[in-house]
Amino acid sequence: MSYGFGTRVQAPFADVLAQVRQALADNGFGVITEIDLAKTLHEKIGAEVPDQVILGACSPAHAYRAIQAEPTIGLLLPCNVVVRSDGSETIVDVIDPQMMVKLSDSSSMCAVADEIEEKLRATVSAVNAAF
Amino acid sequence: MSYGFGTRVQAPFADVLAQVRQALADNGFGVITEIDLAKTLHEKIGAEVPDQVILGACSPAHAYRAIQAEPTIGLLLPCNVVVRSDGSETIVDVIDPQMMVKLSDSSSMCAVADEIEEKLRATVSAVNAAF
Repeated sequence: MSYGFGTRVQAPFADVLAQVRQALADNGFGVITEIDLAKTLHEKIGAEVPDQVILGACSPAHAYRAIQAEPTIGLLLPCNVVVRSDGSETIVDVIDPQMMVKLSDSSSMCAVADEIEEKLRATVSAVNAAF
Repeated sequence: MSYGFGTRVQAPFADVLAQVRQALADNGFGVITEIDLAKTLHEKIGAEVPDQVILGACSPAHAYRAIQAEPTIGLLLPCNVVVRSDGSETIVDVIDPQMMVKLSDSSSMCAVADEIEEKLRATVSAVNAAF
């Protein structure tokens, strides 16, 4: 994939999800949306997929700068962090904020994306260090 | 912007937001996340921005097909629909699902994106027709 980065750890889904929440908080992110995709797909269409939760991470100060730089950037907010199981390992996928730079018309987006990317990579490193 | 489409209408923010919700439901989307960005930025950092709400629209059957086609696609879900004011008009921005095709490695994503795009464009048309 060209729109994210992340890690795989050999630890139970629930433990990794808890560590991801902690690491996001430690790096200044609030979780402002949350989708239990496996539960939603089961309830809505009866589909069975491995555990998968999509967390929407937001740093309000960065979100504010981003919408000042480009009024339509709300379409790409918040930054998704996906925790999912593949049956044997737990995978953490993080959206690459540089995607915003690639898609955006605004040169001011670079600095915001660089700062957010640093915090998201620190989040992934903290999760790796915990297992 | 190269990642969305939408419309502008001369109607109050709250009226447009209500119509967008109705049009999404009529086109088979559930709203599974919702961020009142203006309220969040005010509460978290004291910033004042015009009304802006980010709705996360999801068609479970399409989401299921998308994650089967590409396991990391949760990073780009749900499809954001942003309703915002610029002080005089109300703007509806919709994520362009073809972005998923551009970013994805999977050829199966095309059909899913085409179907979702059609439904999102129908949503925008319905909002336009209402005002």
